[in-house]
Amino acid sequence: MPFVTVKVLEGKSVEQKRALVEKMSRLIAECWELPQDRIFIFIEDLAKENYGKHGQLYVDLESGMLPKSNMI
Amino acid sequence: MPFVTVKVLEGKSVEQKRALVEKMSRLIAECWELPQDRIFIFIEDLAKENYGKHGQLYVDLESGMLPKSNMI
Amino acid sequence: MPFVTVKVLEGKSVEQKRALVEKMSRLIAECWELPQDRIFIFIEDLAKENYGKHGQLYVDLESGMLPKSNMI
Amino acid sequence: MPFVTVKVLEGKSVEQKRALVEKMSRLIAECWELPQDRIFIFIEDLAKENYGKHGQLYVDLESGMLPKSNMI
Amino acid sequence: MPFVTVKVLEGKSVEQKRALVEKMSRLIAECWELPQDRIFIFIEDLAKENYGKHGQLYVDLESGMLPKSNMI
Amino acid sequence: MPFVTVKVLEGKSVEQKRALVEKMSRLIAECWELPQDRIFIFIEDLAKENYGKHGQLYVDLESGMLPKSNMI
Repeated sequence: MPFVTVKVLEGKSVEQKRALVEKMSRLIAECWELPQDRIFIFIEDLAKENYGKHGQLYVDLESGMLPKSNMI
Repeated sequence: MPFVTVKVLEGKSVEQKRALVEKMSRLIAECWELPQDRIFIFIEDLAKENYGKHGQLYVDLESGMLPKSNMI
Repeated sequence: MPFVTVKVLEGKSVEQKRALVEKMSRLIAECWELPQDRIFIFIEDLAKENYGKHGQLYVDLESGMLPKSNMI
Repeated sequence: MPFVTVKVLEGKSVEQKRALVEKMSRLIAECWELPQDRIFIFIEDLAKENYGKHGQLYVDLESGMLPKSNMI
Repeated sequence: MPFVTVKVLEGKSVEQKRALVEKMSRLIAECWELPQDRIFIFIEDLAKENYGKHGQLYVDLESGMLPKSNMI
Repeated sequence: MPFVTVKVLEGKSVEQKRALVEKMSRLIAECWELPQDRIFIFIEDLAKENYGKHGQLYVDLESGMLPKSNMI
């Protein structure tokens, strides 16, 4: 406790996942005064064809005319 | 806002996903009077070996004797 | 199938939920050629103190100086 | 109803999933006096690089010095 | 591990929840040969106004003309 | 993106939630080099009667004989 789920667009490397898990565990432990072994983190890789925003699939947004800075 | 998750049996094509995301975004925007860029949709592909109903795994239901019309 | 979850900021009325469920069920049924009785929709009311964006809790964003048009 | 999600570390065989779905459906039906065809079960396979505990990624825990008995 | 979520229509008593948690933990432990202290179960109470099926909100289905036996 | 869900036992104050949201947003932004306005955090309060571990409901664990240090 707590149980944390991080849904993120596919493509994060193991190194990026490792860095997040280690830092986020430490932060939660400090912020809420919990031992780190009570903290569980799950990462969910979201495929680009499974993510819709702006009323469009992300695969279409990405290949389209929108400037990158508009994308979440 | 809102954040919508659609869990569906694996096998939907990108075209089917695109159609759903576009129409569903428009519908939510109209129904709840929201701009489309506030709407996020996530699709989750459910593998047939990860879906149980009628007390059975879907892979077994599908290969079995039940008429298709009984399956959800 | 499919199983749809709609996470939305608390405050939607039963009428607004009813309208969404009825229209969304019809849309999914038409878009993916499914009978409506295969479609399940779950709504999750998100409390304002449980929603963070822009690095802030929504309760703080709402009471703060940001123009409403910046909020999702 | 109910809708059950079982998140488990990747590697369970179809046989292990089948056994769980069949037994769990029967148990819920008996325990809450429901027909089995009201029960839906979803299994989510969790990749080892997507699971963090003890402040570490599971892939690192597994290859590391911790005795197996300490792992969840 | 595993982490199990049980989404069920509101109204289950603490006794019903206790019975399910105890029996389900034992079943998973036996079925997959795991110690019970590795198993986490979360129950989610689903309000009747937040559940849609048959293209309708459950509150409407319940108060309507459909025979109870048709409801999930 | 990312979309983070933090499931935690009921009882966290608004101040504790605010602190976590602000620090966690900053951490994710730095760790993965993202603008903070791309980050969404959802907190889920878990009622004690809806949380099972050690094969028991948390309400029973808490009122029972187990030393607090054994609880997650």
